[in-house]
Amino acid sequence: MSLIAPTERGRELLERLQAFFDRHIFPNEALHEQQMQALRAAGNPWQPVPLVEALKPLARQAGLWNLFLPHAHKGEGGVSNFDYAPLCELMGRVIWSGEVFNCSAPDTGNMETLERYGTEAQKTRWLEPLLEGRIRSAFLMTEPAVASSDATNIECSIRRDGDDYVINGRKWFSSGAGHPKCEIFIVMGKTDPEAARHLQQSMILVPRDTPGVTVLRPLSVFGYDDAPHGHMEVLLENVRVPAENILLGEGRGFEIAQGRLGPGRIHHCMRSIGAAERALELMIDRLSARVAFGQPLSAQSIWHERIAESRCMIDQARLLTMNAAKMMDTVGNKGARAEIAMIKVVAPKVSCQVVDWAIQAHGAAGLSQDSWLSEMYAHQRTVRLVDGPDEVHRNAIAKLEIGRRARRG
Amino acid sequence: MSLIAPTERGRELLERLQAFFDRHIFPNEALHEQQMQALRAAGNPWQPVPLVEALKPLARQAGLWNLFLPHAHKGEGGVSNFDYAPLCELMGRVIWSGEVFNCSAPDTGNMETLERYGTEAQKTRWLEPLLEGRIRSAFLMTEPAVASSDATNIECSIRRDGDDYVINGRKWFSSGAGHPKCEIFIVMGKTDPEAARHLQQSMILVPRDTPGVTVLRPLSVFGYDDAPHGHMEVLLENVRVPAENILLGEGRGFEIAQGRLGPGRIHHCMRSIGAAERALELMIDRLSARVAFGQPLSAQSIWHERIAESRCMIDQARLLTMNAAKMMDTVGNKGARAEIAMIKVVAPKVSCQVVDWAIQAHGAAGLSQDSWLSEMYAHQRTVRLVDGPDEVHRNAIAKLEIGRRARRG
Amino acid sequence: MSLIAPTERGRELLERLQAFFDRHIFPNEALHEQQMQALRAAGNPWQPVPLVEALKPLARQAGLWNLFLPHAHKGEGGVSNFDYAPLCELMGRVIWSGEVFNCSAPDTGNMETLERYGTEAQKTRWLEPLLEGRIRSAFLMTEPAVASSDATNIECSIRRDGDDYVINGRKWFSSGAGHPKCEIFIVMGKTDPEAARHLQQSMILVPRDTPGVTVLRPLSVFGYDDAPHGHMEVLLENVRVPAENILLGEGRGFEIAQGRLGPGRIHHCMRSIGAAERALELMIDRLSARVAFGQPLSAQSIWHERIAESRCMIDQARLLTMNAAKMMDTVGNKGARAEIAMIKVVAPKVSCQVVDWAIQAHGAAGLSQDSWLSEMYAHQRTVRLVDGPDEVHRNAIAKLEIGRRARRG
Amino acid sequence: MSLIAPTERGRELLERLQAFFDRHIFPNEALHEQQMQALRAAGNPWQPVPLVEALKPLARQAGLWNLFLPHAHKGEGGVSNFDYAPLCELMGRVIWSGEVFNCSAPDTGNMETLERYGTEAQKTRWLEPLLEGRIRSAFLMTEPAVASSDATNIECSIRRDGDDYVINGRKWFSSGAGHPKCEIFIVMGKTDPEAARHLQQSMILVPRDTPGVTVLRPLSVFGYDDAPHGHMEVLLENVRVPAENILLGEGRGFEIAQGRLGPGRIHHCMRSIGAAERALELMIDRLSARVAFGQPLSAQSIWHERIAESRCMIDQARLLTMNAAKMMDTVGNKGARAEIAMIKVVAPKVSCQVVDWAIQAHGAAGLSQDSWLSEMYAHQRTVRLVDGPDEVHRNAIAKLEIGRRARRG
Repeated sequence: MSLIAPTERGRELLERLQAFFDRHIFPNEALHEQQMQALRAAGNPWQPVPLVEALKPLARQAGLWNLFLPHAHKGEGGVSNFDYAPLCELMGRVIWSGEVFNCSAPDTGNMETLERYGTEAQKTRWLEPLLEGRIRSAFLMTEPAVASSDATNIECSIRRDGDDYVINGRKWFSSGAGHPKCEIFIVMGKTDPEAARHLQQSMILVPRDTPGVTVLRPLSVFGYDDAPHGHMEVLLENVRVPAENILLGEGRGFEIAQGRLGPGRIHHCMRSIGAAERALELMIDRLSARVAFGQPLSAQSIWHERIAESRCMIDQARLLTMNAAKMMDTVGNKGARAEIAMIKVVAPKVSCQVVDWAIQAHGAAGLSQDSWLSEMYAHQRTVRLVDGPDEVHRNAIAKLEIGRRARRG
Repeated sequence: MSLIAPTERGRELLERLQAFFDRHIFPNEALHEQQMQALRAAGNPWQPVPLVEALKPLARQAGLWNLFLPHAHKGEGGVSNFDYAPLCELMGRVIWSGEVFNCSAPDTGNMETLERYGTEAQKTRWLEPLLEGRIRSAFLMTEPAVASSDATNIECSIRRDGDDYVINGRKWFSSGAGHPKCEIFIVMGKTDPEAARHLQQSMILVPRDTPGVTVLRPLSVFGYDDAPHGHMEVLLENVRVPAENILLGEGRGFEIAQGRLGPGRIHHCMRSIGAAERALELMIDRLSARVAFGQPLSAQSIWHERIAESRCMIDQARLLTMNAAKMMDTVGNKGARAEIAMIKVVAPKVSCQVVDWAIQAHGAAGLSQDSWLSEMYAHQRTVRLVDGPDEVHRNAIAKLEIGRRARRG
Repeated sequence: MSLIAPTERGRELLERLQAFFDRHIFPNEALHEQQMQALRAAGNPWQPVPLVEALKPLARQAGLWNLFLPHAHKGEGGVSNFDYAPLCELMGRVIWSGEVFNCSAPDTGNMETLERYGTEAQKTRWLEPLLEGRIRSAFLMTEPAVASSDATNIECSIRRDGDDYVINGRKWFSSGAGHPKCEIFIVMGKTDPEAARHLQQSMILVPRDTPGVTVLRPLSVFGYDDAPHGHMEVLLENVRVPAENILLGEGRGFEIAQGRLGPGRIHHCMRSIGAAERALELMIDRLSARVAFGQPLSAQSIWHERIAESRCMIDQARLLTMNAAKMMDTVGNKGARAEIAMIKVVAPKVSCQVVDWAIQAHGAAGLSQDSWLSEMYAHQRTVRLVDGPDEVHRNAIAKLEIGRRARRG
Repeated sequence: MSLIAPTERGRELLERLQAFFDRHIFPNEALHEQQMQALRAAGNPWQPVPLVEALKPLARQAGLWNLFLPHAHKGEGGVSNFDYAPLCELMGRVIWSGEVFNCSAPDTGNMETLERYGTEAQKTRWLEPLLEGRIRSAFLMTEPAVASSDATNIECSIRRDGDDYVINGRKWFSSGAGHPKCEIFIVMGKTDPEAARHLQQSMILVPRDTPGVTVLRPLSVFGYDDAPHGHMEVLLENVRVPAENILLGEGRGFEIAQGRLGPGRIHHCMRSIGAAERALELMIDRLSARVAFGQPLSAQSIWHERIAESRCMIDQARLLTMNAAKMMDTVGNKGARAEIAMIKVVAPKVSCQVVDWAIQAHGAAGLSQDSWLSEMYAHQRTVRLVDGPDEVHRNAIAKLEIGRRARRG
């Protein structure tokens, strides 16, 4: 029995999700690709994918809806991080699958933010339709002009004007903002650039159709535009919203940013691990099927090394992430700060490496649209930058470590 | 004075090419992008890019045409590998620039093949228009069904039938075959599957418009289709060509494949080094421009390490490649076998690493269409697979090394 | 609460052991070094170290004796692998500490072997004095002439002759055989070179004072001879022992070798992790104490990266090893085969890397006798080779992985 | 013909040195080891090794004496860096060989320093006997108490007192100071701690037998004491020397330190390359000789990768170092600043890696006194720290690179 043997509830949920994948997700991967290509060929890929829309009610019927919710809401969610993490690993095998279960970023983080920090009015207006999957959302944080990993660099201004706030700024890599159903933005900006370092920032709700909001263009990662969700550049020019749209209050933006990070990290990292696990399977299958210079590639010790290293790295990353999940469940986000920073560095690095080896095992095919690998590499490489680049997290881990040592010494 | 100080002729050519780049290439990078986007938006990117077509006559006027040619032809080319290599490095800074000088793959390798192994009739019919830049060509080697790095796996059949050969097979990653001016394919196949291991293969000329030839689709690398040249999948069904289209004779395909490799490797590798050099510049510029946590990123020792490692790796890779070029110039392709295999492993690995660090320095911007880096990463990652994956070349290097030691021991 | 939070018993044992270290081990490290130097200066370091001998009764009184024993024996041991592992981690901080608790290799493995596979007579004669700490033992496996990681290469012969066995062979790296109290060898050899691959080997008990046994010389690792235990070369010439000295029976040697491996791997790996943990502490302390170019070295981001990577690697390696321990406790050695192979590759690699970085942080001091680091590096580097080099274990992991995939596919 | 094809003189010298090695060095490696062991067994290894002393006159007769000298002196030396470098590579194959040719550190650097910066009186008194090989020398730079890679940290004081200087300080890792013939120290200290950053330091000549000088103890690296030269800790207490013993003048210490570095770096790095080359040979020989699991280890692709990587790394490091040598010969130490810093980082890193792989190929034997590898690893690991750790050189390279880019941009 492994240290991460699931609880009874975790096991039951995973079996149910696995059954859903076996019936509805894995057999439909080609269909999803065809539908996206058809939308593209017809000139507009920024539309809901019919397959995904069709599967959502099935997922909800199967009790696989909103599982990410930390606290149960109308009988949905309320799953611990430890139990939910393996579900994310499975979802990580198919990039588009999370939305089927209303469990895809950035909506999960946004819903969690609204649930923790929103007023009742805000919840009624935005959280409910998000939980129903009727609308989608985006989180506008990163700015093209500054190193956004240092939150004090944020330039977007949120200025009080009577009963309103007026917002001006330019954001980009606003994931999900390309989706036609994306109706609400959570915007990070500064209400007081003169305040103490971590009290300058605020978060505010901005409906996408507010005058002054322009979704300029999709950014691509490597060559992928990730339609229909996309990573958008958004211009905010004198965008005026009622004062009650502020979240938690002026100057609380940094605090919310900290609070919303933990569970999302677990999700991201477990999806990375699922991706790595699938890449390893694909690697082995390919190596077993190809013969060169008289033997299957899988008989060569150079590939034994890579398979063994992949297995070691994946198992370690999973244990580290599951441990972070368990810590969050028991001592909370703050107590698990170091663990959460560590998985953010480790998991996407592992998945990048394993996917890259799998590409190498596939030859040129591994780079092409015929393979799941190239798109997954692009995705995992991106994860090493979103929510702060590796360097920022390594600095945080080191400072915690040095501090701990200083206190003991 | 460095070991790779250019000769007088090399210096003169490099200065002339640099001047051309400063005047016509670097200032037009944005225009090239716009024209490609316009073609794409209009529905067909598989067309000559107006800018490139406009620059070709200027390049020819400037005496910068067909410089890759090992032996002078009508006053063009005849540049040593050692002198030509730095020109490739410069061309490596802008992916699309080689074609401007009629110096882009696979046409260079195909022209060289025709020049070395073609009959006079073959030269008149195909080499001349290629040298003029009036048509383009492709090289059909890799097959989707087998590990093509082992040439004995090739399944494409070239069967003699009276005065003709009849060809059947499926090829892919046939670079350049997507271009509308691509009129001639050099096809690798087997004339005699029962012959000795390296006498089974032959190469044959197949005009693209021969009945039975179908260019099925472009393969993408990561998300890029690399239009207008592309990497195409090509079906050959009962393709009938006259017997005189064979190159050099039946069973000589492996011999030709070996012979054509050397100079192309130098070109590829020097372009990789040019790419790495530019990536390092972009890295430093970005790090110098961005401030986080109170200092420019370029003041952080973690980036000092990466900049220093980049410089060490690039300078070493350049010396290694220039040494291989010098060896080829003096002792020939065969004597430089080990050196050519070594640069094939080293150069793209270096450029992948430096470009990857540069991406990390840029944050998400480095992954997007706003940066040259993401497309260059995709390109350099591909180079680690084309013309045989790293593993095949490392095996070759090791076997040469073990053999040399056995003879001495 | 972490996934590897100790059980009540584990916690109690660890606290007791920690108290013993704080009182008797850490304060005496310099004394141990002095005593070794004094023995050396006096011309013979192959003697019991007075400090260690003096501490043994204290350890036994403190109930910290024979804790490694899987099954309780006269009230000692009977600790699960999961509970015992953290004790090994602590012992890993001081190379010589294990013996104080009668918990040092190869005696632990030898005692376990006798306990599992020995006859009552063998136990009475050898196991009891070993458990008492009155004698010590060695395990003679590796041979200088062959690649011993492939057990079928073993050349030592064990030939039946009437009521005796006659043994001939040359063994080396027989750890512990240099100790004056080392009285018993377990010898691996071949009783039937013609038998099936894994039925050729047998293990037999050879008292050190048997005629024909010559302990030739100590092998050093890097510059260390690891006196007083040492890694000895041993010649066996017509060594005659009674037939009842065979362990388990002819042809069972490979089986015993497999069976004895598991717990020892946990011990080794947890000691590696303890070593890495201490190296990280030393690294941080040094970096915090040294100033160069205007700031403490601990403020440089290059060291942040290494500290953070160390923490990530150590925590992952610990989780992996504790998971293997838990698996062994629940599904047994065979079920935990992959996990045991994985930790053997991962843990010493991690400790080598962390110790190497710590050396770099210390400058030349880190290489010298003033630092614990250089000897620990030598020790950890050795662990990557003993019980089979990394390559052998990676091959085993890969084959398990490929096999598992083949069954599923 | 390679880029580093030797000049006529270089070729002639290398052939002569190779002949000497084939006749006198390689066949005597075991004898050298025996003599050292005999000295050790007799209780004092800090003595000249008879073999080395016997070979010196033969080397001088063969015209292989003082070849390191940049400017010819009485018909000896005057070899360019480019011609001398391959001789160092050969000497790098046998750790103790340099002294045979009066070409070992730190004497070479000390002689060069005296030759460039010494007065005629200083030359007569110290340089001549050093050139004759009658005495040896040491360079006292590193201090145990501070991060000596930042020269401004130096604490050793050199205080003017009438016609004398009085020196107080503690130095360590003073290589060569253990040799009984070591008669002169060059000491780095501060004459004016208040001066500008790089004008505080001075160098001064201190005869070893001056009152107040105590050679305290040898430092070991890993377990090796490197007798009879050693790396000594030296205490300087009120050491009084005449004012004319100062080198070049007060405050010129940093300037001398910079000036003396270049050629020594070439020597060190080429020796590292020679060590790596020999390690690769040993690796291949061992892999070819050992069979496991049915085939020689040299047939496994995991070893193909390491052999190929070794060849690529060694050839690149050699080209880089030879290029630095050529630069020094043509544009001088200052113009070759970046190149010299680069080889200091690259060459020992390469040799550490290749030697480590060779150890892995040898199994435990590679760690023992039976192999040249373990001592060589210790030596090469040390090179990554002496004359400044890698980090300091990488910072220097990066700053040169950033500065160059800033000027161009």
